[in-house]
Amino acid sequence: MRSVHQAPGTVTYVGRKRSMETLLEVIDYNKNNFERFNSKQPIDAFNFDHPDRITWVNLDGLSNTKEIEKVGKYYQLHPLIIEDIVNTSQRPKIDEYEDYLFIVAKMLYFKKNGRLENEHISFVLGKDYVLTFQEAGGDVFDGVRNRLENSNGRIRTNGSDYLVFALLDAIVDNYFIVIDEIAEKVEELEEELFKNKPRENITHEIQDLKRAILKIRRSVLPLREVISRLEKMENTMIQSRTRNYINDLHDHIIHITENIDLYREITWGLMDMYMTTISNRMNEVMKVLTIMASIFIPLTFIAGIYGMNFEFMPELHWKYSYYVLWGVMIAIFILMLIYFKRKKWL
Amino acid sequence: MRSVHQAPGTVTYVGRKRSMETLLEVIDYNKNNFERFNSKQPIDAFNFDHPDRITWVNLDGLSNTKEIEKVGKYYQLHPLIIEDIVNTSQRPKIDEYEDYLFIVAKMLYFKKNGRLENEHISFVLGKDYVLTFQEAGGDVFDGVRNRLENSNGRIRTNGSDYLVFALLDAIVDNYFIVIDEIAEKVEELEEELFKNKPRENITHEIQDLKRAILKIRRSVLPLREVISRLEKMENTMIQSRTRNYINDLHDHIIHITENIDLYREITWGLMDMYMTTISNRMNEVMKVLTIMASIFIPLTFIAGIYGMNFEFMPELHWKYSYYVLWGVMIAIFILMLIYFKRKKWL
Amino acid sequence: MRSVHQAPGTVTYVGRKRSMETLLEVIDYNKNNFERFNSKQPIDAFNFDHPDRITWVNLDGLSNTKEIEKVGKYYQLHPLIIEDIVNTSQRPKIDEYEDYLFIVAKMLYFKKNGRLENEHISFVLGKDYVLTFQEAGGDVFDGVRNRLENSNGRIRTNGSDYLVFALLDAIVDNYFIVIDEIAEKVEELEEELFKNKPRENITHEIQDLKRAILKIRRSVLPLREVISRLEKMENTMIQSRTRNYINDLHDHIIHITENIDLYREITWGLMDMYMTTISNRMNEVMKVLTIMASIFIPLTFIAGIYGMNFEFMPELHWKYSYYVLWGVMIAIFILMLIYFKRKKWL
Amino acid sequence: MRSVHQAPGTVTYVGRKRSMETLLEVIDYNKNNFERFNSKQPIDAFNFDHPDRITWVNLDGLSNTKEIEKVGKYYQLHPLIIEDIVNTSQRPKIDEYEDYLFIVAKMLYFKKNGRLENEHISFVLGKDYVLTFQEAGGDVFDGVRNRLENSNGRIRTNGSDYLVFALLDAIVDNYFIVIDEIAEKVEELEEELFKNKPRENITHEIQDLKRAILKIRRSVLPLREVISRLEKMENTMIQSRTRNYINDLHDHIIHITENIDLYREITWGLMDMYMTTISNRMNEVMKVLTIMASIFIPLTFIAGIYGMNFEFMPELHWKYSYYVLWGVMIAIFILMLIYFKRKKWL
Amino acid sequence: MRSVHQAPGTVTYVGRKRSMETLLEVIDYNKNNFERFNSKQPIDAFNFDHPDRITWVNLDGLSNTKEIEKVGKYYQLHPLIIEDIVNTSQRPKIDEYEDYLFIVAKMLYFKKNGRLENEHISFVLGKDYVLTFQEAGGDVFDGVRNRLENSNGRIRTNGSDYLVFALLDAIVDNYFIVIDEIAEKVEELEEELFKNKPRENITHEIQDLKRAILKIRRSVLPLREVISRLEKMENTMIQSRTRNYINDLHDHIIHITENIDLYREITWGLMDMYMTTISNRMNEVMKVLTIMASIFIPLTFIAGIYGMNFEFMPELHWKYSYYVLWGVMIAIFILMLIYFKRKKWL
Repeated sequence: MRSVHQAPGTVTYVGRKRSMETLLEVIDYNKNNFERFNSKQPIDAFNFDHPDRITWVNLDGLSNTKEIEKVGKYYQLHPLIIEDIVNTSQRPKIDEYEDYLFIVAKMLYFKKNGRLENEHISFVLGKDYVLTFQEAGGDVFDGVRNRLENSNGRIRTNGSDYLVFALLDAIVDNYFIVIDEIAEKVEELEEELFKNKPRENITHEIQDLKRAILKIRRSVLPLREVISRLEKMENTMIQSRTRNYINDLHDHIIHITENIDLYREITWGLMDMYMTTISNRMNEVMKVLTIMASIFIPLTFIAGIYGMNFEFMPELHWKYSYYVLWGVMIAIFILMLIYFKRKKWL
Repeated sequence: MRSVHQAPGTVTYVGRKRSMETLLEVIDYNKNNFERFNSKQPIDAFNFDHPDRITWVNLDGLSNTKEIEKVGKYYQLHPLIIEDIVNTSQRPKIDEYEDYLFIVAKMLYFKKNGRLENEHISFVLGKDYVLTFQEAGGDVFDGVRNRLENSNGRIRTNGSDYLVFALLDAIVDNYFIVIDEIAEKVEELEEELFKNKPRENITHEIQDLKRAILKIRRSVLPLREVISRLEKMENTMIQSRTRNYINDLHDHIIHITENIDLYREITWGLMDMYMTTISNRMNEVMKVLTIMASIFIPLTFIAGIYGMNFEFMPELHWKYSYYVLWGVMIAIFILMLIYFKRKKWL
Repeated sequence: MRSVHQAPGTVTYVGRKRSMETLLEVIDYNKNNFERFNSKQPIDAFNFDHPDRITWVNLDGLSNTKEIEKVGKYYQLHPLIIEDIVNTSQRPKIDEYEDYLFIVAKMLYFKKNGRLENEHISFVLGKDYVLTFQEAGGDVFDGVRNRLENSNGRIRTNGSDYLVFALLDAIVDNYFIVIDEIAEKVEELEEELFKNKPRENITHEIQDLKRAILKIRRSVLPLREVISRLEKMENTMIQSRTRNYINDLHDHIIHITENIDLYREITWGLMDMYMTTISNRMNEVMKVLTIMASIFIPLTFIAGIYGMNFEFMPELHWKYSYYVLWGVMIAIFILMLIYFKRKKWL
Repeated sequence: MRSVHQAPGTVTYVGRKRSMETLLEVIDYNKNNFERFNSKQPIDAFNFDHPDRITWVNLDGLSNTKEIEKVGKYYQLHPLIIEDIVNTSQRPKIDEYEDYLFIVAKMLYFKKNGRLENEHISFVLGKDYVLTFQEAGGDVFDGVRNRLENSNGRIRTNGSDYLVFALLDAIVDNYFIVIDEIAEKVEELEEELFKNKPRENITHEIQDLKRAILKIRRSVLPLREVISRLEKMENTMIQSRTRNYINDLHDHIIHITENIDLYREITWGLMDMYMTTISNRMNEVMKVLTIMASIFIPLTFIAGIYGMNFEFMPELHWKYSYYVLWGVMIAIFILMLIYFKRKKWL
Repeated sequence: MRSVHQAPGTVTYVGRKRSMETLLEVIDYNKNNFERFNSKQPIDAFNFDHPDRITWVNLDGLSNTKEIEKVGKYYQLHPLIIEDIVNTSQRPKIDEYEDYLFIVAKMLYFKKNGRLENEHISFVLGKDYVLTFQEAGGDVFDGVRNRLENSNGRIRTNGSDYLVFALLDAIVDNYFIVIDEIAEKVEELEEELFKNKPRENITHEIQDLKRAILKIRRSVLPLREVISRLEKMENTMIQSRTRNYINDLHDHIIHITENIDLYREITWGLMDMYMTTISNRMNEVMKVLTIMASIFIPLTFIAGIYGMNFEFMPELHWKYSYYVLWGVMIAIFILMLIYFKRKKWL
């Protein structure tokens, strides 16, 4: 979020990846040509201006807001857009402007430690260019880059709107991976819970998983809205043949939200499962104690009786008392075992 | 789902039944004729082209995507349809095209082990043909096949739209069976919970049941939408006399969703029931321990007193001490029993 | 539900009351006349055809589907209606046809054992006749019959639509009784839970109550929809003066659904109450054990000390040791009691 | 509710306050005049018929349905209205008739014992009169009566619609008081739960509070609907200047429903709090037992060893054994204390 | 809320900050001029009436309702507005009047003790003036004041509508801070729960946090509505260039509500976490008791056996009995340890 007490429209980067410089990657293509260019100077992007080509300008790193503003000025972007590009807490949305569409989305990565990381990404879709702004290098677009380079699929013959679709599609495909990882984590936790002695911090892992699922929802639900609006939008920027693909993408993201809600309900049930597991184990502990105590406390009492020092205790002087007593005690022992066997505690 | 990093529109089978070949079954009929044909060559389907007959082409096995694409080309299906046919993770939906309707549904099977399996099935409804694509052989359509063969009911005299209705109806009827099995499972679990010592993995069975119910919902809810849209669709493909039947089918699937929600709430309550069961059993264990300990610990203490070796303990030398002591101890024992009886612990 | 693998439109009775024959009851009336007729032959109904009278034909027993079909044919009912009449799992609904309205509803009976039974009932409302089809004899319409016979209220002077309203009104009134019984059951369970030792199967009773409440909702909610549609329906079958009464009926059924939701929430809370009750009782048990053990274990230890057989234990030979020891032990006993009193365990 | 098996439209009082006679109170006023009249004869109301004055007729007591019907006849009220006036289970609603509006509402009183009582009240708003029908004497309208008498505020100069608004406003203001009492009860219960030993029947109090909150919702939510409809109603009965005030009233009742939902969520959390409180106390009990047992059981064992009567036990004959043993036992005692201190059980 | 039994429209301050006098602060500015004025006399505000300047009149302290009414009269505010300004329990809302807009909002402060405080604030937006009424001095507008004074941003060149936007924006920004504090509190509680011995009153802190979150929702949700209505309002008071900024503000407040719901779900999970923590600790306690008792009770029994005084016990006279017995007891001890090790209790 914008740091408090600042004027609205102020361009301030609030993400965590502060030390990064801004890297430029340009892919300039049409049906027959393909050019790729990398630089550390965002302004180098302005050299790509072939009227018959589509130019994809990708910028990694948002902390150098000056550079971003330069790019924004060159492409005549509204100041509020620049603010949203660097405002990494901006939720997914779509804004229509006269000459371009502005889309915000989130890339999600489910980390090994069970935490979910998201990366802010913004798209500007113009007539013959696409701008993408990412928080850091490394993204989910390598498949798109390959298809562009190798000219397979429809990607080189379709317009800039198809490229944006392909990029959004890559993001949504990546959500499937995240959900698979969530599914794995859920199953791993379920198995752990079934163990005799689950990990100590398993409630924290469950709580973290809940938190991750809630965070995914917060990234996916608004994106679903964005894609739904893209589908219905009457905008010359979106060609009708691309619309079919967006319709398909909409299906996918609905499927994802349904999966999220599935794992959400299952995860919420894990805590109950854990509670019953704990209680069951406590039951086990109590049974051991009760069996031990119930058997030996009466026997100890009997031994105590004949440890008394009364002068007149006839049994003490009878020759077979000791052996009879052992018999009695063994009988008690066996009866107790039978009793507990019947109660199914053994 | 489509494997990640691939171009949209790429036809890739992602289901688990990879080793299967694609089997063809054709049923070609009109009011007076009925022909049935089986083959291992999907392309054999193209021979059935009587203008006055309705042709039902059923394909089992989706892993050989080449064959599917051939069939798609012959019937002029849109590439996205082919993708959806083999994409077994596609959720139920309906798409209108100029010459045909495309419907995706799921057949559900509730397995003995409490797991739910679903099988992806797609329908293409054309003027005088119906295509169905299933993941594997074995389905819920034998009733339909019999009625077609024996010409009972309206099925032979109605059009291809009625056939699709009949097939969807068979799928929905099968959901009733699945729900009955869910109901049985719920009752079985309830009885198990009431036993003295429920199965150890009952929380896992409950969690599996929850998962199964959530999965059913995810298959049924979008199908309800599909059927609702079919009912209202203004499409020449659907004749008005079929519409009444679809209306009825809609009623059935609403009934199913209500049943699902009923068993859902009941299943969610099972975990609470289990928790109280565990706690009750723990109470039983604790009572046994408490009774045994409360009775014998004081008695043992008394025995301990007279086991002391003090030189000057007058009781030790009195002749009837031992018998008096037994009397006292028996009195304590009986008083304790009365006390626990009053507390209703016995 | 229709048994699976059968053609849609097949008339099959699926209820449980199979052995019943179909009984006919006809009430034929207008402002001045009233005739009542009973028979075991449904076809006897066809004799009642006075043009200036309203005929109420009531059939009890649905297992003889042949007879039902005959009646259906005589009144020119659509085959799907006949199917719905005998399909006892059909949910409440309303269908408009050209010459009649078809309504399905459920009569509910809350049984002593805490189980809820429902009886399927269908209405056909024609210009001058009303058909009702019930699963079995015995219903909630005796009040309506009396009013018809004794000609009190508006019932004899109004049309067939008013009769259907009066019958639906009797069903809804009966729901109030069911809800009162639910309320009683809830209070009975609450009191039981507060007892020292609740019935063993109380969790099952609570679960059964939940199930009953969920089932009532499934009967009442669609009927509310039916009544709401009746109210708004622009159909010549419903006269405007009857509409006021239906409006009132709508109010009643909304009131019922609100009551159901009230008792639902309260019933869901019972399980929590039970859980706390169990835990409280466990606390009681543990306290008794802890008090007994904490008092006597140290005392027994002291007695054990002076039961040792060391040669050199000066206390053993001192004349007043024994009495001093008793003093010490009584002091410990009293201190313990004070301690537990302070902790409010006694 | 109407007693079952009676004809709709039958006027039957079903409330609990049966023995009351019906009391009449008339307030007749305009800008300059104010007259107040009490009687035990409802028909005395018919004497007040000044064309330039507004007449408020208030009737307390609904069990004498004959009198109510007489009043209804005089003011030409529809029979269904009379039924609703005496039907104390009727939920809040508004009905438009040609010459008057009919409004049902509920006055709520939160009793000391934690139970909620509601009183049925009906309004008839005519051109120059307002009728109110209450179950019993005693209401929340004294403020309105004073303002009428003392002619402060706008009340004397505005029409009958403003009077109804003022009365509804008094009812809604009273809801604020009820909610404050609910809030107090919630806080009282929270404090009780935090005590060492909460009242035994606290779960019942929580359950009663839940029930009260659910009942309030059932009175307030439909009244909110009523007020919302009043606000939007295009009816000559409601003057435009009164509409602003109703808008304000709508704000208040939304505020109330939000508060109800707030306390609802908090109350639902109380049961969880209680459960953790019980468990914490159980933990305390168990710790005391465990500490006592863990310390003295090993010591008693050691004492037991040297109480054995073997002939050959060298320690028995050594001179300082007894003192050494005391040392050992004290050491064990101290080590145990340190151990439990470290575990934070002490 | 208005104190009960008072006429609607009565201006009564019901907040808690009664002793405060009303302080005036005026900021009068246009593009080139900036004037700031403080006074204890609200009526001093009437001196600022430059036609080409925008005047922001801020009043702190609402208990002196006479002064507020004077201001209201000068600016020709409707009596109901004055009532809402001093009625601190009024929920956020927006009312359109002919010459001005009236907006109510809440400033939130999350106190150290975990309690949430809110301060009632009202805005009147006129053509060339903005009135703000706060409960007390101290607010979240210092950033706005600085920007006005230093003339940075667009604030000096835009109209009074932009000033109101800037003030609302400052309030919403402050919500982000509150949510961050909630987030910190949640994490602090989670860590506390994971400790061996959480604070005693942690359930109260969780309950307080729940309450705070519910209160925030009640302030934020209606404000979201207000902002959404501002965005869509067709009112000449709001210029089109300001509308873009309000759109942005709407995004922010949606983001806030999503965050609130996130922390809400997480906080609701804390109680479950605490419950499992308690149960786990109880398990630990029980294990220690069970291990101690299970080991020493049988050993004590054995010692008891040889403490008996029977005349004929051959073992007593055998020379090595004592040493053999020690061996047996040590063996039992070790076997027990192995058993508990296997059970993973050690």
